[in-house]
Amino acid sequence: MYRAPVEDIAFTLKHVAGLKAALDTGALGDLTEDLVDAILSEAGRFATEEIAPLAKIGDEQGAVLKDAAVTMPAGWKELYKRWTEGGWNGLSAPEEYGGQGLPMMLGVAALEMWNSGSMAFAVGPTLTIGAVEAIEKHASDELKRTYLEKLVSGEWMGTMNLTEPQAGSDLAALRTRAEPTGDGSYRIFGQKIFITYGEHDFTDNIVHLVLARLPDAPAGTHGISLFLVPKFIPNEDGSPGARNDVFCASIEHKLGIHGSPTCTMIYGDGFAEGMEPGAVGWLVGEENRGLACMFTMMNNARLAIGMQGVAVAEAAFQKALAYANERRQGRASGWSGEGMAPIVHHPDVQRNLLTMKTLTQAARAISYACAHATDIARNSQGAESAHWQDRANLLTPIAKAFSTDIGVEVASLGVQVHGGMGFIEETGAAALYRDARIAPIYEGTNGIQAIDLVVRKLPLGGGEHVFGYIAELDEIANAVAVSNRSGFGRTALLLEQALDCLTNATRHLQSRLADGRTDAALAGATPYLRLFALTAGAAYLARGALADGGEERTALCRFFAENLLGETRALKDRVIGGAESLATAAKTLVHG
Amino acid sequence: MYRAPVEDIAFTLKHVAGLKAALDTGALGDLTEDLVDAILSEAGRFATEEIAPLAKIGDEQGAVLKDAAVTMPAGWKELYKRWTEGGWNGLSAPEEYGGQGLPMMLGVAALEMWNSGSMAFAVGPTLTIGAVEAIEKHASDELKRTYLEKLVSGEWMGTMNLTEPQAGSDLAALRTRAEPTGDGSYRIFGQKIFITYGEHDFTDNIVHLVLARLPDAPAGTHGISLFLVPKFIPNEDGSPGARNDVFCASIEHKLGIHGSPTCTMIYGDGFAEGMEPGAVGWLVGEENRGLACMFTMMNNARLAIGMQGVAVAEAAFQKALAYANERRQGRASGWSGEGMAPIVHHPDVQRNLLTMKTLTQAARAISYACAHATDIARNSQGAESAHWQDRANLLTPIAKAFSTDIGVEVASLGVQVHGGMGFIEETGAAALYRDARIAPIYEGTNGIQAIDLVVRKLPLGGGEHVFGYIAELDEIANAVAVSNRSGFGRTALLLEQALDCLTNATRHLQSRLADGRTDAALAGATPYLRLFALTAGAAYLARGALADGGEERTALCRFFAENLLGETRALKDRVIGGAESLATAAKTLVHG
Repeated sequence: MYRAPVEDIAFTLKHVAGLKAALDTGALGDLTEDLVDAILSEAGRFATEEIAPLAKIGDEQGAVLKDAAVTMPAGWKELYKRWTEGGWNGLSAPEEYGGQGLPMMLGVAALEMWNSGSMAFAVGPTLTIGAVEAIEKHASDELKRTYLEKLVSGEWMGTMNLTEPQAGSDLAALRTRAEPTGDGSYRIFGQKIFITYGEHDFTDNIVHLVLARLPDAPAGTHGISLFLVPKFIPNEDGSPGARNDVFCASIEHKLGIHGSPTCTMIYGDGFAEGMEPGAVGWLVGEENRGLACMFTMMNNARLAIGMQGVAVAEAAFQKALAYANERRQGRASGWSGEGMAPIVHHPDVQRNLLTMKTLTQAARAISYACAHATDIARNSQGAESAHWQDRANLLTPIAKAFSTDIGVEVASLGVQVHGGMGFIEETGAAALYRDARIAPIYEGTNGIQAIDLVVRKLPLGGGEHVFGYIAELDEIANAVAVSNRSGFGRTALLLEQALDCLTNATRHLQSRLADGRTDAALAGATPYLRLFALTAGAAYLARGALADGGEERTALCRFFAENLLGETRALKDRVIGGAESLATAAKTLVHG
Repeated sequence: MYRAPVEDIAFTLKHVAGLKAALDTGALGDLTEDLVDAILSEAGRFATEEIAPLAKIGDEQGAVLKDAAVTMPAGWKELYKRWTEGGWNGLSAPEEYGGQGLPMMLGVAALEMWNSGSMAFAVGPTLTIGAVEAIEKHASDELKRTYLEKLVSGEWMGTMNLTEPQAGSDLAALRTRAEPTGDGSYRIFGQKIFITYGEHDFTDNIVHLVLARLPDAPAGTHGISLFLVPKFIPNEDGSPGARNDVFCASIEHKLGIHGSPTCTMIYGDGFAEGMEPGAVGWLVGEENRGLACMFTMMNNARLAIGMQGVAVAEAAFQKALAYANERRQGRASGWSGEGMAPIVHHPDVQRNLLTMKTLTQAARAISYACAHATDIARNSQGAESAHWQDRANLLTPIAKAFSTDIGVEVASLGVQVHGGMGFIEETGAAALYRDARIAPIYEGTNGIQAIDLVVRKLPLGGGEHVFGYIAELDEIANAVAVSNRSGFGRTALLLEQALDCLTNATRHLQSRLADGRTDAALAGATPYLRLFALTAGAAYLARGALADGGEERTALCRFFAENLLGETRALKDRVIGGAESLATAAKTLVHG
């Protein structure tokens, strides 16, 4: 059973991602280390003792749809109630609306633990938090007054409605339409698919944020507006009133996260006689600027999904490690006890477990560093704030894609460590393998993340921001080199080599983009993102080892450098030299 | 829906794995190319038209246990009947007992197609074929007379009973016991788990091959004997007679291959009053030599499981390719048609699809080459036969582990290409991702395969056999270099580099073994196996391209060399330099 690794998380936040320095310099106001520790400890307790025990029943029962109403797994409604009563929903939300206004670093650390407890449970509140951000930043005061407090407290939940059958990654193709009624409200018509927590029994009301087109809106992404559509239209006193014309038509039968209802939502097509047709909604932000509003949610949502990758990897590692210490098979040179050796003594099992552990640590460090950048950007001004916002923007696609990719890899290795037992559902390793698979897909596929990194993030700061970041990683490599700590082995050298690869690959892609050879750059985007992440991850592991001084972190850093970092050279070669053969061979793929 | 790639399979068999040369030299007797083509075509038709359409119902219904009887998914019993009526069960079985005595190359090619149709269906007959081999090689004439014809025709099916709860990879720990009765038969007592097709409704009788210990047998693997235990004891006329005391106590609730019943079998613990206790069985082979008999089955079973990896990868590739040609999203520079571009035109999707396709082709070629070696060994004498048997032994763990590893990778990429639809069970991509995950585990985990490769196969021929094989691959690299075919790009150079890595890593491991530093060798076993497979796979793709002369195979070979082969350097570095950091970091894993 999962136990929240509170100590490791706190260490990574403070000494790798920069929380300690931010606390010491007062960059985060009057937040104290004691408070940080107390919050992490309590969030960890909730994840370990309250959420994790209900993960299995969620997987087995799943969410069930009947007569347009979704019943959640047994005990989940009560779990959600305890979670909101603990104030967890508003952890990073504005104090003005009842939130705790704490840094995002704490938010993502807590989110990691809750997702390790159950991805299917934790993904729901993630969307509410996104809705709070979008409404707070873009909605009218009246909408804020009506909805924000209830969403911050968790009394109501929020959703994001982007995808339509013909429009997945390409939002320009959206067709859902919104017609103004003249009284300031709109009527929404259309179908949205893959709506996470679109319908459930956790709360009295559900607040949908919906992308739709106004009449005569321009084609493409510049003609999309954002609307707030509540399931029940609030009365004057704020209580849920008339049922709105938005209904859940079906829920998906999915590979994993069974407890999370994935809904097809129908707007404006199912209502009682005598009513005006259409779902009642209100504009959020300006007309035709819906995508900008949605991107507010999406950047943070992407980091949140990255945390799911870290979370499922941590859960898979813990489960495999426990099994490997218990299960006995054969003899091992490192085992002098009686009988068969616990399989953790076999080098091949050790390789799997260390790969799982260090990939998880690397992804965690990158994700927390991304949250740190957002926090500093929010808590600073002018050029400093802009610099850190660039940093957050640079790291977001990496945190999302790398963490969720390694989530799948680590969960798969976790099944493998269990041998035959891993394939049996009762063991629980298989459920993590199933759950993990959604995270590289939703909130922008990892291919989209890689394209975002190359096309939108490498040009930041006139193309120089990324090199400033690489220079910071280089300082870590230098610090390893001068540390003279023998436990690092060849870490400094290998990290320098990886940084050279990253530098060369970055220059190559920037020059491809400058030459207008976009396809050649896109062909290398995914290998580039992984190259970036492995290098940054190794540097962060080294920073932790340097800060810590203990043998354990040093040994894990060295394992990562000497066993996993070597892939960077091959990735660099793919980025620089792989595009032409890809384009040539791709001709074999096109039908007709 | 899957369509058997008969042409590609035939080409790989003939021009990459060596079937054409063997036919031309008469090494396979009077088998003709026309007959080969006819058999492959008909096996492909059966896979495409008969098996594949029943895969989904198998996944959804699964095998169901009630009152110790297993009901198979709807239509599967009739499917099995048609399959046996087609004579497929005896394809490679001895003609003496009604088989067709065809080369293993044809057997594995057909097996690949049947597994692409449905892994859960095809795995059953695989075990029967293994049972036929063990009985034919090791059993008494009486047992052969009673069982072989029925097993060859498929009228009865066979199983392999190795695993017990405390004995998975380590067969030395087996406890099931066999007591001689004095009349030549034995009574078997014990519990076996993870018995594939241990119980089902396909056939009137099931023939279990069971590893057990005789009284006073030596401890460890040298005290294990093999027994034949039928579900119904045959009457004098060969028909199924009295019910034997072997029962299915439960079946597993698994991640995938739901149609395949995975049984816990209880021997000698559930019988009617008045009967002697114990399940009636007969010794196969010599006392205490059961493991040697079982290894006869296991080597071929391992290659058969490797075919499952190739098969699931092929099915996943086909499904993803079809979707990518149909699904439209966004714009792409390679698309000049109307509206949104089919996603197959996006470079990131192309990278995923080409990775899937070429990994599948590489694994297929290695697996067929392994079958070719077995065929030549069987059809030759003396030193030549020994040479080819060594070759088959060398390639078996690579074929099993690499094919099943890439089966998981490719199935996972297949889900990714589908985006959100990939996570929905109805699409079918998720089912392949679930099914694929068992193959790296059963028939010896892939970690065990890597250890087998390093510890047992590198020493073959005094350590020289492997270098003879590498020299053959080197000839292919030379042929690419002198071909002056521009479409190969940097293939020759990169293949030479990979071969250097393989040579150096091989020497390193042999010297570690010679020095008695076994753990250091074992730490690098899995990276070594992948290094070996990527290099061999690239060479085979090149051989195919050279034989074919067309642009398509050359382009795919070049993609593999320039995009996937670069990993070999990192793998070589891990083999040579990764063990120490692994051993140091592993101390953090051991509890207590």
